[in-house]
Amino acid sequence: LKAGNIEEFRHLFLELHPTDQVELFISFDKNQRQRVYEYLSPAEFAEIFQGLELEQQKEYIVELDQTFAIDMFNSMSADDLADFLGELPDIMAETYLNNMGLEDAQDIKHLLAYPPETAGAIMTTEFIALSTKEKASDVLKRLRQQAPDAETIYYLYVVNEEGKLVGVVSLRDLIVAQDEQLVEEIMSTRVVSVSVLDDQEEVANVIKKYDFLAVPVISKQGKLVGIVTVDDVMDVVEEETTEDIGEISAARGAVDLQLSSFSAAKKRAPWILMLAFLGLITAGVIGRFEETLETVALLAVFIPLIMDSAGNTGTQTLAVVVRSLALGTIDRVGVGKLLKRELGTGMMLGLICALVLVLAIPLLYDGNWVLGMVVAVSLFAALSVATVVGAAIPLVINKLRIDPAIASGPFITTLNDIIALFIYFSVATAFLHYIQ
Amino acid sequence: LKAGNIEEFRHLFLELHPTDQVELFISFDKNQRQRVYEYLSPAEFAEIFQGLELEQQKEYIVELDQTFAIDMFNSMSADDLADFLGELPDIMAETYLNNMGLEDAQDIKHLLAYPPETAGAIMTTEFIALSTKEKASDVLKRLRQQAPDAETIYYLYVVNEEGKLVGVVSLRDLIVAQDEQLVEEIMSTRVVSVSVLDDQEEVANVIKKYDFLAVPVISKQGKLVGIVTVDDVMDVVEEETTEDIGEISAARGAVDLQLSSFSAAKKRAPWILMLAFLGLITAGVIGRFEETLETVALLAVFIPLIMDSAGNTGTQTLAVVVRSLALGTIDRVGVGKLLKRELGTGMMLGLICALVLVLAIPLLYDGNWVLGMVVAVSLFAALSVATVVGAAIPLVINKLRIDPAIASGPFITTLNDIIALFIYFSVATAFLHYIQ
Repeated sequence: LKAGNIEEFRHLFLELHPTDQVELFISFDKNQRQRVYEYLSPAEFAEIFQGLELEQQKEYIVELDQTFAIDMFNSMSADDLADFLGELPDIMAETYLNNMGLEDAQDIKHLLAYPPETAGAIMTTEFIALSTKEKASDVLKRLRQQAPDAETIYYLYVVNEEGKLVGVVSLRDLIVAQDEQLVEEIMSTRVVSVSVLDDQEEVANVIKKYDFLAVPVISKQGKLVGIVTVDDVMDVVEEETTEDIGEISAARGAVDLQLSSFSAAKKRAPWILMLAFLGLITAGVIGRFEETLETVALLAVFIPLIMDSAGNTGTQTLAVVVRSLALGTIDRVGVGKLLKRELGTGMMLGLICALVLVLAIPLLYDGNWVLGMVVAVSLFAALSVATVVGAAIPLVINKLRIDPAIASGPFITTLNDIIALFIYFSVATAFLHYIQ
Repeated sequence: LKAGNIEEFRHLFLELHPTDQVELFISFDKNQRQRVYEYLSPAEFAEIFQGLELEQQKEYIVELDQTFAIDMFNSMSADDLADFLGELPDIMAETYLNNMGLEDAQDIKHLLAYPPETAGAIMTTEFIALSTKEKASDVLKRLRQQAPDAETIYYLYVVNEEGKLVGVVSLRDLIVAQDEQLVEEIMSTRVVSVSVLDDQEEVANVIKKYDFLAVPVISKQGKLVGIVTVDDVMDVVEEETTEDIGEISAARGAVDLQLSSFSAAKKRAPWILMLAFLGLITAGVIGRFEETLETVALLAVFIPLIMDSAGNTGTQTLAVVVRSLALGTIDRVGVGKLLKRELGTGMMLGLICALVLVLAIPLLYDGNWVLGMVVAVSLFAALSVATVVGAAIPLVINKLRIDPAIASGPFITTLNDIIALFIYFSVATAFLHYIQ
């Protein structure tokens, strides 16, 4: 098919949904891609290019000639283009920007100036702003011309003479309105907005909370500078979830199926090695009690039980905290209350486990009830501490805004292991004469 | 303020965004809520009721009198109402349905008949369907009347005489079109739809992939029966993510900040206890090697290192699999390829750890290079197995469609612990004479 004539390819290919065009394009080899660049106009290819992942964009951009690329950039939406150029080396991005239309280039430069993962960085500047005194019928007329350029026309934001955001009109309101009604009569003034420097996760939470299709972004001065649409937010949510899951499992940056064994191992090895070194520290803690162990080798048998219980309890707490940070529910409940609750939960979990084991261990190990007591008391103390550690560390890390990766599940688990084993062997050493 | 007069409260309260009304309502005590029921009409209160969580809806429904509740139900959107009634005991739901308008009640009954977590269960039946021969201007006129009832008017679906879905027109297309153009001239025929029995996660992936605001749901016969909007999908994504994180951390159903210590402990205790019992099995495995341990107590020192490394490696793999199941990327890559990649990754990770430890352990423990060898060989074998276990179990569980909770992180970790410790002590026992 692809070897055939231009017209037929264009007809069949452009009939497809852009997302499907992207999928097809990715499956092409280099020769076939070259033909796509020939057959499609820069504007048509822009649709495909926008749908590619950043990594793929970087791979294919070098296959395009400069003029084609510039024309394509001019057809791309400002936010997608800014995302892409932000990933390129500065000199390359500069070169492209200098060759683009002046106005577009200005827009992009503004977007590039916002810190990553903020509302400013993910917003688009292609929105439609209305003034309060426009008539509904005039707005509809204007939409017919501007619709193709705007990211969404379903929410129209109303600004006053100074560019400040004063209201919002949905296209639905506009359709239902009388032709002669003024924008200020049909607009809603209870407009929810976000600030350019707000974190992208906060933007996502606003859209989710209010079931919006888009949210306006305002500058420090209250001026409307852009909008974030729900599809961008879906991407943000996906990205943040992948990050959160990576954190809980210490597989940050490696939760990707496309990688080869070798690159997956390369990305995951630092975590595993670092955790293995922490394992050596744990070994050191147990090593301090070697005498105790030599006296009662049976004590070693419960190391996994103690470790797993403390580790699991801490991980449960971590999951609660990570999820509530993502959903923003933590502000409503309060950090103090959360810590108190987790301590309470840990003590209760410890008590239940202690009660079960104080009965189970003598049954399984020749009526050695002192051993049962030692394990039970240690577990109670270890689980109480584990929940507090599991809650406090991610909260502190989040507060200090340092890289939350070090608060990841396995680190907290290892920390809880060390504490739990230290408690266990200390208790065991104290009661050593009675266990034998 | 609340003690004051009706008019002032209504004015201030109804000015708020429904989402904010909900937040305020939740903060009220019982007396204040009673007054809200008096002051607001059933239709006004329906807006608030729809915004509540299912648990809260069940709590407050008993405070409403029957007539008020029925009137409120009639104002609610069909999908929200079906969600709520589905949670009630059958007899209660029946009573309410029998007292509602016949047509609405029919709609709800249809929705209730779909299995939970399918497209049918989350869709709404309040959509606008067009026929191919309508004129653009007529459609706009019709929208003015029907807009208040429909869930979204931004996508309009086109059906033929048999009710089959044949195209889609966005409100944007309609605004841009000439008044005289027919629907069939402006509609797009490349319409992506989902089937009523599709899993809600698949629906979410379609909407995310194509950046849709809504997706049509068709019956087995190809008839248009409903739509799923992007805001419903956001809720689905949130729910599924919370489930996934709960699974990785064995805190399923307990990732909720609102719970008291006692109820959190009650929900989490079964997991911790079950895992503690698995810990007793692990204890049994080590117990089988008690003689070996008595000969070389130093072996116990590396139990945590072996366990943690195997556990962490398995959890990383689990995170990859859980995430790719959620994003649907696994179908593209294939299960066989994934397993092969994970085995390769595990072997490489094992090799790296082995190389480091075979050098580090003799350095730290008086040049005991046989001990280093034992730990290194065991780790290599254990990590290779751990990735395969971490990938295979959730995949099998997913394939068999049994409750994926048993594939949760800690279970896989414990399984990997047992395998790893068995390997370690077997190797150690084999080389026992050389270690001392």
